[in-house]
Amino acid sequence: MPVLFAASVENAAILLDLFIMLVAAKLMGEVFERLRQPAVVGEILAGVIIGPSLLRWVEPSNSINVLAEFGVIFLLFTVGLETKPNAIFKVGLHSIVVAMAGVILPFVAGYFIAIAWGGSFVESIFIGAALVATSVGITARVLGSMGLLDLQTSRIILGAAVIDDILGLIILSMVSSVSQGEVNLSGLLKTATAAILFTAFIALVGSRTMNRLSPMVGRLHLGKPFFTLGLILCIGLSAASIYVGVAAIIGSFLAGMALAEATEGNNEMHQLTAGVTEFLVPFFFVNIGMQLTLTVFQDPSIIAFAILLTLIAVVTKFIGCGLGAAGMTSREMAQIGIGMVPRGEVGIVVAQVGLGLGVIAPSFFAAVLFMAVATTLIAPPFIKILFAGDKNYDPGQGDNNETDVSDTFSRIG
Amino acid sequence: MPVLFAASVENAAILLDLFIMLVAAKLMGEVFERLRQPAVVGEILAGVIIGPSLLRWVEPSNSINVLAEFGVIFLLFTVGLETKPNAIFKVGLHSIVVAMAGVILPFVAGYFIAIAWGGSFVESIFIGAALVATSVGITARVLGSMGLLDLQTSRIILGAAVIDDILGLIILSMVSSVSQGEVNLSGLLKTATAAILFTAFIALVGSRTMNRLSPMVGRLHLGKPFFTLGLILCIGLSAASIYVGVAAIIGSFLAGMALAEATEGNNEMHQLTAGVTEFLVPFFFVNIGMQLTLTVFQDPSIIAFAILLTLIAVVTKFIGCGLGAAGMTSREMAQIGIGMVPRGEVGIVVAQVGLGLGVIAPSFFAAVLFMAVATTLIAPPFIKILFAGDKNYDPGQGDNNETDVSDTFSRIG
Repeated sequence: MPVLFAASVENAAILLDLFIMLVAAKLMGEVFERLRQPAVVGEILAGVIIGPSLLRWVEPSNSINVLAEFGVIFLLFTVGLETKPNAIFKVGLHSIVVAMAGVILPFVAGYFIAIAWGGSFVESIFIGAALVATSVGITARVLGSMGLLDLQTSRIILGAAVIDDILGLIILSMVSSVSQGEVNLSGLLKTATAAILFTAFIALVGSRTMNRLSPMVGRLHLGKPFFTLGLILCIGLSAASIYVGVAAIIGSFLAGMALAEATEGNNEMHQLTAGVTEFLVPFFFVNIGMQLTLTVFQDPSIIAFAILLTLIAVVTKFIGCGLGAAGMTSREMAQIGIGMVPRGEVGIVVAQVGLGLGVIAPSFFAAVLFMAVATTLIAPPFIKILFAGDKNYDPGQGDNNETDVSDTFSRIG
Repeated sequence: MPVLFAASVENAAILLDLFIMLVAAKLMGEVFERLRQPAVVGEILAGVIIGPSLLRWVEPSNSINVLAEFGVIFLLFTVGLETKPNAIFKVGLHSIVVAMAGVILPFVAGYFIAIAWGGSFVESIFIGAALVATSVGITARVLGSMGLLDLQTSRIILGAAVIDDILGLIILSMVSSVSQGEVNLSGLLKTATAAILFTAFIALVGSRTMNRLSPMVGRLHLGKPFFTLGLILCIGLSAASIYVGVAAIIGSFLAGMALAEATEGNNEMHQLTAGVTEFLVPFFFVNIGMQLTLTVFQDPSIIAFAILLTLIAVVTKFIGCGLGAAGMTSREMAQIGIGMVPRGEVGIVVAQVGLGLGVIAPSFFAAVLFMAVATTLIAPPFIKILFAGDKNYDPGQGDNNETDVSDTFSRIG
């Protein structure tokens, strides 16, 4: 552990980087809160400002990535803790329709705009794939800060975003194998099936198991037994989901969801979890901002492509997901459409994989980064506007609702 | 952020390692709690069992180190939060005498035993240096779990351990420059002076500044403003202390101490901090256990040396620090002596630096590792026995005490 004890400037530099990131994130977060804008936009802008694009105070590094990755894992765990499976089952069908509708339109539009800009076949399907997956973290944080995670539309969005992530990763693995010239349909089908079964299994069985275990957990001699169980489940299911073939964040989301009912009203558990997320999540958002490279935009054609790609990303997702919610009020359709717009980290990762495989050009890579960051910056203010005035269910009514849904759940499970 | 999104087995392996470490730590912690032994011993043994020495389920890695390092940084931050500067000033002189007495005896004894075992001059002063620094984390955790951090003897131990760390790092830098043939006395004096001034400055000014800032902090729009301030101070002073030339953990301890009075009774702040430490600290202790290599002990001469070194480490520290507390009751002298015994991570780091410089033999390195882990394992049960029956001051009386000490503090500051 030389970082701690050796008086080396290199290691102090890591801590200094984290210090700058924290201060910048909290300063910009405070500014945006005062402007009645979501703090998360401030945190991402803080990353753009202190990162390689502008001030160059902080460069992305391995240690920062480790903390950022745990940040998003715990962010999704917290979102899961707020998501009672009953509620998801209630909106499950809606979520699936919204997710599907929001995948097809952006993928096709992304493919054709890239072809029009001279992209190769493989390059263009990568661009299409980068437009698919929704970053649930951004929307969850905005809605969470407004105290609206319990709304039906919020739940549809979060459910659809989780499904979107699964679909996005399946598409990414398809695209990756196409680019390597080995289209293995049976392998792809296996991955897809395993992912869907894993998610369904944890969603159906996890919560019931945890509810039954809960009295035993309380009898442990360890301090903070529920939080300990939460940590183990969160890290364990994150690992398991990668083995199954889906993103780690899906596992941590499912871990939170499995514990949502057993830890309802357990204030200590929620505070302890909040401590971890308050520490780690800012590194995740600042790190996203730091990924944006501004210098490649000296070519006007790239600027035009990036802007058009962003517009298409916003419009196709908004229309696709909005139509997917057909049958609800037009206000709710708009809420769901806008809530699905942020691409954030998932779009960036698709672009990174493409760059790593050597199949997409650096300029296209930069445009996708721009789109991912821009959609993440554009959406939150609109989310705030479109959700303004909404309230969570009244707690009393909520309880009644929950009883109804419990019945549904017993029938399903 | 490919760890999260790419379905790579290598990255799942990192999460799986952390999962195994967490489960092993909590399982062994639970077993030791039920045996009425400190959970920390269970966590270290968990590391020995799952690590390279026995089951080989988990190997030390960079990601684990990052989390373990933050674990010990936040552990010392929590210890600092419990350490009101007033209380430290009250025991300050005691702590200095105890620390000094506990440095000289182990250093000299370690030097001569290594010479007797055929060590070179440089090798032997490294062994001496490895016996110097006390691992405050172990004792703090044991006393903390007994709810005895507020005792006068506890405070003397923690104060002396912090001073010990500073002295240990000064000795380490002296030893390192001796081994490289460049004995730069003025450079060493500069480092020593900077370290002492930095610590004294933060201890004197930090707490008063934070107490004055505290009403402004409450007016911030950010959620959890005190915790945010704590994080920034913790990371910032950790970085600053490395630049000054002392260990990062001294900075985080001082950050906690600066906030101890301003956040007294702030339950949210303490819970949020506990969330971070509950998550990260087990990785630190399991990682220590994983450093122990058992295979080198096939040579009986190394076993004998390791055992003798451990005995000397225990006896010299116990007698040295115990005598340093002369004037107190014999029970208190014994409490202070045993509280200073664990070497833990600092002894390991000294050995690692020696190995890295190529000046100590692998067998001596293994013996120091054994001594560091063994003192850490031996001490906690004795700490529990020697402190059994002690109680913290009654809260009411404590308040009275504190008022007295505040006056003292105003006079000093």
